[in-house]
Amino acid sequence: MSRIEIFGIEGIGEIVVGDDLASVIAAAAAGSTDTNLADGDVVVVTQKIVSKAEDRLVAIDPNDPLSHKPLVERESVRILRRRGDLIISETEHGFVCANAGIDLSNVERGWAALLPIDSDRSARRIRDGLRHRFGVDVAVIISDTFGRAWRRGVTDVAIGCAGVAGVVDLRGTPDALGREMQVTEVAIVDELAAAAELVMGKSTNIPVAVIRGVDASWLRDGSVADEIVRSPKEDLFR
Amino acid sequence: MSRIEIFGIEGIGEIVVGDDLASVIAAAAAGSTDTNLADGDVVVVTQKIVSKAEDRLVAIDPNDPLSHKPLVERESVRILRRRGDLIISETEHGFVCANAGIDLSNVERGWAALLPIDSDRSARRIRDGLRHRFGVDVAVIISDTFGRAWRRGVTDVAIGCAGVAGVVDLRGTPDALGREMQVTEVAIVDELAAAAELVMGKSTNIPVAVIRGVDASWLRDGSVADEIVRSPKEDLFR
Repeated sequence: MSRIEIFGIEGIGEIVVGDDLASVIAAAAAGSTDTNLADGDVVVVTQKIVSKAEDRLVAIDPNDPLSHKPLVERESVRILRRRGDLIISETEHGFVCANAGIDLSNVERGWAALLPIDSDRSARRIRDGLRHRFGVDVAVIISDTFGRAWRRGVTDVAIGCAGVAGVVDLRGTPDALGREMQVTEVAIVDELAAAAELVMGKSTNIPVAVIRGVDASWLRDGSVADEIVRSPKEDLFR
Repeated sequence: MSRIEIFGIEGIGEIVVGDDLASVIAAAAAGSTDTNLADGDVVVVTQKIVSKAEDRLVAIDPNDPLSHKPLVERESVRILRRRGDLIISETEHGFVCANAGIDLSNVERGWAALLPIDSDRSARRIRDGLRHRFGVDVAVIISDTFGRAWRRGVTDVAIGCAGVAGVVDLRGTPDALGREMQVTEVAIVDELAAAAELVMGKSTNIPVAVIRGVDASWLRDGSVADEIVRSPKEDLFR
């Protein structure tokens, strides 16, 4: 029977510039027999610790609550909407999100965390490190928290991945009544990111979660940039 | 440690008008000792079987691939975008989705399934049935598959819920560094719907999934209509 398990990796301390996340994650996961990594696991890593390890922190004036706004403009290629202090923009990666993905929570006062330059590459680096140095063949997703059009509340989505499909294409797979299905391209990497958030929370200091038991057919080369980011040309809402 | 388990309920056959979904789900879950329902579980039910049980099927011309389009217009209060045969519209529930949520897959040829009239109420009915007649106190989510602006691929979201929060408000909860967090309203009900989809697939005939181990503080009265649907007035993208 189809059964999936999701658990957080505890014991990951503050991440600083240059930290090797594969080593940090492997060590923390091995800290409990309950959380040892296994082949086929999907390891979901929050953007914040990736940005810290990759030196994507920028100093801002701690006494000016709007001091990160010039950064938002700099990190945006297109402003979609403004309301009050809120800016919804498109980043150079093609993500559409609030404040160009720049975020001040869980970052030391006086610093802002920018998005990683290439989160697919960040995911590949962690995946390769876990495989070559720790002998475990896992998929890796870098997740971040974005708002949506039309629906209230934020959800976690994938901004990078390695070893797992972005989109699973179910076009032409017969449905349960045996007829050919209509187009169904499921953004599996975003559903995995959302699922991981259920054990991470926002303030419990669990920046990494593991999803175990996913369909083996999803574990192939994948990319958020190539599969998930919708080009402005084919986007009806930009 | 925070650990969540997700499994599908197998053995649910074709649903017909008037079926009592609480009984159907309870019987199927009890069909295996692995899937017996327990207090605190979140039971995620796909819209399709709810629409069937609630007689939301409408006859269409099976030989005309566009015969459901007049239904889409009828079920929409506002057309947002058209491209070719695709219509993105707002339903009377306030959902923004393709084809007003009307769907032909996993429905007998010659029929189209409309969304339930009030999916929060549908969820409450299933929840109440499971509680009063089967003695188990679970939350219920009705899920459907929607596209998104800016990102390719569809994901499952909640269109109704009972016994679980739509949005969990983390405003003011101290972050891991002990400072007050910025606004973070997490659409937990959508993350749960997305997570459930990981075991349901689109063609495996598993229309119900159970999520076990969620944070007890999320299990309160909730509503997709009241908490998730963004009013056009406060929506920057309508």
